[in-house]
Amino acid sequence: MISKQAIAEWFRGLQDRICRGLEELDGTGRFAEDQWTRPEGGGGRSRVIEGAVIEKGGVNFSAVHGPMPERIHQALGLPPSDFFATGVSIVLHPRSPMVPIIHMNVRYFETQSHSGTKNTWWFGGGIDLTPHYIVQEDARRFHLRLKDVCDSHHPEWYARFKKWADDYFFLKHRNETRGVGGIFFDRLNEAEGKSKAEIFDFVKNVGEAFVPAYAEQVAAGLPKTYGQRELEWQALRRSRYVEFNLLWDKGTRFGLDTDGRTESILMSMPPLAKWKYNHSPEPGSPEAETQELLRKGIEWV
Amino acid sequence: MISKQAIAEWFRGLQDRICRGLEELDGTGRFAEDQWTRPEGGGGRSRVIEGAVIEKGGVNFSAVHGPMPERIHQALGLPPSDFFATGVSIVLHPRSPMVPIIHMNVRYFETQSHSGTKNTWWFGGGIDLTPHYIVQEDARRFHLRLKDVCDSHHPEWYARFKKWADDYFFLKHRNETRGVGGIFFDRLNEAEGKSKAEIFDFVKNVGEAFVPAYAEQVAAGLPKTYGQRELEWQALRRSRYVEFNLLWDKGTRFGLDTDGRTESILMSMPPLAKWKYNHSPEPGSPEAETQELLRKGIEWV
Repeated sequence: MISKQAIAEWFRGLQDRICRGLEELDGTGRFAEDQWTRPEGGGGRSRVIEGAVIEKGGVNFSAVHGPMPERIHQALGLPPSDFFATGVSIVLHPRSPMVPIIHMNVRYFETQSHSGTKNTWWFGGGIDLTPHYIVQEDARRFHLRLKDVCDSHHPEWYARFKKWADDYFFLKHRNETRGVGGIFFDRLNEAEGKSKAEIFDFVKNVGEAFVPAYAEQVAAGLPKTYGQRELEWQALRRSRYVEFNLLWDKGTRFGLDTDGRTESILMSMPPLAKWKYNHSPEPGSPEAETQELLRKGIEWV
Repeated sequence: MISKQAIAEWFRGLQDRICRGLEELDGTGRFAEDQWTRPEGGGGRSRVIEGAVIEKGGVNFSAVHGPMPERIHQALGLPPSDFFATGVSIVLHPRSPMVPIIHMNVRYFETQSHSGTKNTWWFGGGIDLTPHYIVQEDARRFHLRLKDVCDSHHPEWYARFKKWADDYFFLKHRNETRGVGGIFFDRLNEAEGKSKAEIFDFVKNVGEAFVPAYAEQVAAGLPKTYGQRELEWQALRRSRYVEFNLLWDKGTRFGLDTDGRTESILMSMPPLAKWKYNHSPEPGSPEAETQELLRKGIEWV
């Protein structure tokens, strides 16, 4: 059986590889690191970049453990337990409004009940893309990459995890998706008919797909020119990103509820965001076109 | 017994008076109104101003009713019920960083259980002040006004509601208060040893205190000069305001959970906000001085 230490070790290495890859992609930005420990157990390494391409980006590794807060073990339908959680979390806000925001999270979770009767483990994760301006061909390319990763492990995972992402990365109060989605999965374990090693392999492939998938998006968007209008729209789209993360994102909530390091959890916030009361883009404009594509169930592939 | 219709009517009039008062205070801005109805019952009038003093401000009146969502009646410890809620909600974001953000809410809530066995009513509300730069004398003046209102109704209310505000307007994940506080109260009913009319009178006085209390703060801050540095700090403080409202504010959560009108609920969002990773103000600076005062338990009066 693969140990939690081995999984955490692999995630730590993934953070290193992703940071190197993103520095290369950015050209000039360099990650700065903060190491932190959590009073109740564990800690992590938060890395932040401000570069030429990436205006504000965070790549966080953590491995934390301790008693599980009551509201969490109840929400999970588990008896009073200790937990161990490790993973890598990323959000990148690019300077150019023509380049999408991207997010990835891969994680492993283990619980040990205090009575010793019920222990559980699972993997979870997801990648999703939030273009300020949706380009259907780029969305398709992104989904094709994720489909390739999924297909090499299970014929039904892409369809299932794509739908899961549509449902998860959804702003209920706006009735709109966060972007063009991607994949999302949670609580993957033996019940999938796969071994722990096999599921871990899948999660590894998701993690390793991150840099090439984003590099492609950057390559497509970066050459495009933009002006004040596009920057304004970017600031408005970023405020939707804030709303999703603070209102709906379970990872943010879990982090805050388990007294995680606030600055590491909120690394996902954009550098600047704007709210305009009751704003809606001019009919027929590129902004309106994007708005119309922010809905569930679009098959990009 | 005062009817819910009479209470709603009074709140509607309060909105009118406050809007007139704020237009006068602003000098050039005029409120624009959106009337809306809620599919499940009721509706409201949202009014928004963009002016010379107030960069983005919202004054919302609503009177809504319908079946109470399950998670809400459970959280309130009530049987399955219909609810009626009416009130006025205000958040004002001034242009000048030397003028504080202000918030007020006054509300009335009534429930009728489906079995007819348990009906309840209560008033709630609060005013709190969020200076970008805390000036102790101005905070004191603000609290004195609120203390006057409370003292004329109950000798212990100011102390109790001031503490309640410290606890409520608190960013747990930052271990800091939203500003210099004010008063907060909820579920006030006969259990206070006061009649419904008496409690309503108190709520009326709170509502009427809003414009003069803010006018005083504007008068104190408006003559002060500021530059890029202060605007930068304002944008950072505004992002804390966003965090509070989306992560902790029960009114926002209630509004979204009962499918309220999103644009009216999120009128409280600032026009622009910035997040900087792990920012902390220079020791000894005015910003650091404000940061140090963002804690519970300061007796401003």
